[in-house]
Amino acid sequence: MTTAYDQLCEKFARLAKLNGAAAVLHWDAAAMMPRGGAGARAEQLATLSLVTHEMLCEGEVGELLDQAEGVAAEGASGFGPWQRANLREMRAKWSHATALPGDLVAAMSRAGSACEMVWRTAREADDFAALRPYLDEVVALVRQAAVAKGAAFACAPYDALLSQYEPGLRAADIDRHFDTLAAFLPELLERVLERQASPRLAPERIAPSVQEKISRRLLDALGFDFEHGRLDVSLHPFTGGVADDVRLTTRYDAADPLGSLFPALHEGGHGMYERGLPEGWRYQPVGQAMGMAMHESQSLLVEMQVCRGDAFLGYLAPLLADIGGVSGPAWEGVGLAQRVRHVARSLIRVEADEVTYPLHIIHRYRLEKALLSGDLAVADLPGAWRDGMQHLLGIDVPDDRNGCLQDIHWMDGAFGYFPTYTLGAMAAAQIYQAAAAALPDLPDHLGQGDFGPLMDWLAGEVHSQGRLHGAADDLLEAATGAPLDGAIFRKHLENRYLGG
Amino acid sequence: MTTAYDQLCEKFARLAKLNGAAAVLHWDAAAMMPRGGAGARAEQLATLSLVTHEMLCEGEVGELLDQAEGVAAEGASGFGPWQRANLREMRAKWSHATALPGDLVAAMSRAGSACEMVWRTAREADDFAALRPYLDEVVALVRQAAVAKGAAFACAPYDALLSQYEPGLRAADIDRHFDTLAAFLPELLERVLERQASPRLAPERIAPSVQEKISRRLLDALGFDFEHGRLDVSLHPFTGGVADDVRLTTRYDAADPLGSLFPALHEGGHGMYERGLPEGWRYQPVGQAMGMAMHESQSLLVEMQVCRGDAFLGYLAPLLADIGGVSGPAWEGVGLAQRVRHVARSLIRVEADEVTYPLHIIHRYRLEKALLSGDLAVADLPGAWRDGMQHLLGIDVPDDRNGCLQDIHWMDGAFGYFPTYTLGAMAAAQIYQAAAAALPDLPDHLGQGDFGPLMDWLAGEVHSQGRLHGAADDLLEAATGAPLDGAIFRKHLENRYLGG
Repeated sequence: MTTAYDQLCEKFARLAKLNGAAAVLHWDAAAMMPRGGAGARAEQLATLSLVTHEMLCEGEVGELLDQAEGVAAEGASGFGPWQRANLREMRAKWSHATALPGDLVAAMSRAGSACEMVWRTAREADDFAALRPYLDEVVALVRQAAVAKGAAFACAPYDALLSQYEPGLRAADIDRHFDTLAAFLPELLERVLERQASPRLAPERIAPSVQEKISRRLLDALGFDFEHGRLDVSLHPFTGGVADDVRLTTRYDAADPLGSLFPALHEGGHGMYERGLPEGWRYQPVGQAMGMAMHESQSLLVEMQVCRGDAFLGYLAPLLADIGGVSGPAWEGVGLAQRVRHVARSLIRVEADEVTYPLHIIHRYRLEKALLSGDLAVADLPGAWRDGMQHLLGIDVPDDRNGCLQDIHWMDGAFGYFPTYTLGAMAAAQIYQAAAAALPDLPDHLGQGDFGPLMDWLAGEVHSQGRLHGAADDLLEAATGAPLDGAIFRKHLENRYLGG
Repeated sequence: MTTAYDQLCEKFARLAKLNGAAAVLHWDAAAMMPRGGAGARAEQLATLSLVTHEMLCEGEVGELLDQAEGVAAEGASGFGPWQRANLREMRAKWSHATALPGDLVAAMSRAGSACEMVWRTAREADDFAALRPYLDEVVALVRQAAVAKGAAFACAPYDALLSQYEPGLRAADIDRHFDTLAAFLPELLERVLERQASPRLAPERIAPSVQEKISRRLLDALGFDFEHGRLDVSLHPFTGGVADDVRLTTRYDAADPLGSLFPALHEGGHGMYERGLPEGWRYQPVGQAMGMAMHESQSLLVEMQVCRGDAFLGYLAPLLADIGGVSGPAWEGVGLAQRVRHVARSLIRVEADEVTYPLHIIHRYRLEKALLSGDLAVADLPGAWRDGMQHLLGIDVPDDRNGCLQDIHWMDGAFGYFPTYTLGAMAAAQIYQAAAAALPDLPDHLGQGDFGPLMDWLAGEVHSQGRLHGAADDLLEAATGAPLDGAIFRKHLENRYLGG
């Protein structure tokens, strides 16, 4: 006899496989697809998303969930922690899908596509006015969705959006963390800027094909398995594909080799998380990554905590010399460290360093909350953007292209996503500290390019845990002994940028 | 009010988009995917195929077809030739899907996957015995399917299989064409072999990257639009993707440049057909290519009729010299022509020339009919293979690896597909003859690498017709004035290989 839970597992496996298909198609769109394929691809992806949404919303799924939860509550055998967690995650996915009427989902999808299309031109032309009506529409629809989901989940509308990316995350938690950051970061930034030396010039270039060779060598060192993944090129580096076939991208500029290697390592951190997810739960909700903050913690742990640290740079410098054929003070020792840890007030989030990045995020977080609550009109966004950048980062924004038009997230309706970047950076510091405490020889290993012990520890404590825990804080507590503790990130920044 | 026909159009568009997603994933599996991704990809593709099969078999579809056909039969406005043809193709797709019980579809899919997996090893090891039980299972299931479809369509079982690849095609037609071919080809082959000179040696190699450059130049000349397509590498060249994003592949061997260029041109011919399908019917059944024979006619028209002909070789030779840096008697004039038109008795179908290829196909066609009718047991296939190769091609088969284990088709359950290769070759000769009659300056254009007039003619007469016609013979008649006429193919072979 097939139980309700078994039937659910089969249904969610089917959904997961269709989502996997979509993930590969998304990667292809960014890394391979010719421009003229965009229309057909949009149709394919929209259809996949519609079909999976309909499958999830079938009346039967709600009934099966009720039945399976009833059986689990009676303490039936076969319902261990993983099965219970899986059922919880199924319910969450179902709740998110069914909280919105179908026509709102369709309207959001259409509005997001239209806004994104206009945005590409508007950003180029620095023309916020052209974008405004489209973004207005997106914000209005997302607000409707937030209200509907908030009502369904009995939480604040913005919290309902957050939970799409990070289960259980609430604005109150973010406020606490971000207010602390906002209180010390501007001053810390000031002090860092005062004491840091100008980075050395690196006149030598490294050909893209050679950068690729170094990137692959670094990913090999990280333990990334090219039998289960690829490294390609895209405009913005990202990690796509599925757990058994992870597609990493970076981009190459002969004049900026570090600008390809560190993104490759960053994406490699994401990739190792995907590869390390529990294989026995591959197509079930509990087998997926914990959330976007935890995902970002794994990429930033590799890129920021490890690879911009001295131990790893001691391994990188000879590699740059051997394979890249570059040498001299800009490519080794203090000179290399100064370059990879250079801090600057800057306009563009994706180019920001570890110290200023959280300020870019706090800025966006505050703005998106205000946009959704109605405290800020879309028309007033450019001005509010300038004010916030001046206030938090002490920098003048010369135009909207380098201001509120720079990111794609809002155009697509992704509100509630930005905070996960900085929560991830904080978690990275905390997890790295725990790993370092558990692995006394870690710096020696990293200095030899040996990521094995660190990755084994992460695999056990984080990657293999999937979504067993109900929230990132629970996973953090199990792995490090405490929920997210911003003081560790602060200490990391102070040690790295003011210490020594 | 939405009519039944409108609802059908929406459903079939959804199916077409999911099939498009699957097509890109198939391409990725052959051209990009790391080996370790195979399991996940198989799951994605199986799920897509299951979901589309279920959608097509929903009770509602049959009712909507009945309604729409009723309305069309009453001569309702809005039902022009294209709408009628679309409805006919919808009914055909529905009939194929619903003719088989779901468990037979699933069993065939599983048996095909298992057989294909074993085949890869068995071929390598020349171990037919290992394959035998798996192929037995596949043949038994395909026979069941053929009987079920034959009953549903009131036709012979094997004809029902043929119609999966080529609407309306019947074994009786094939027999007529193939018996004629089998009657004159062996003797023609004998005469060709007697009179042809040994091909010249071409000691120079062309680096793969340079071959790729030449391939792209040739595809540009053909009119292939790289804004709507790509050229990549795979073990066996093929054309995948979707009409707005056509993915061609070839493969490069420095020692055999012609072995990359001609496959690229062949796939380019397929690609031009896909690109030229009627854009207004992109996601409807009537907007798809006519069938596999007509598809092959377009690739062979480019590769065989045009590109192995003297006019085009006059354009190719200087290109090989300019870009490829090769010259001398093996790379120009008679020497080049002898190489690209060299005929030989050979063991492997995919390496066969234009004269012997049909014999390989006739051989397979006869064997697969015998396998399905039960006249030939799978256990007796190796012996029957040797006998047939001796009889038709006059060649001894030294082992099964170079014999009955060489092709993937049967392993996957694709019975009824092989004949379309040779029907395509015959159609190619006929279509080219009609194009040449309509375009008196054609050889001059081709000699300058100008495919424009030919491609415009093909676009109008063939590509843009989609599946408006009910069968390849109808399309051929509209385009060339007559249904498939094997005498034209014979004349082509005699002119090219015995004439002059």
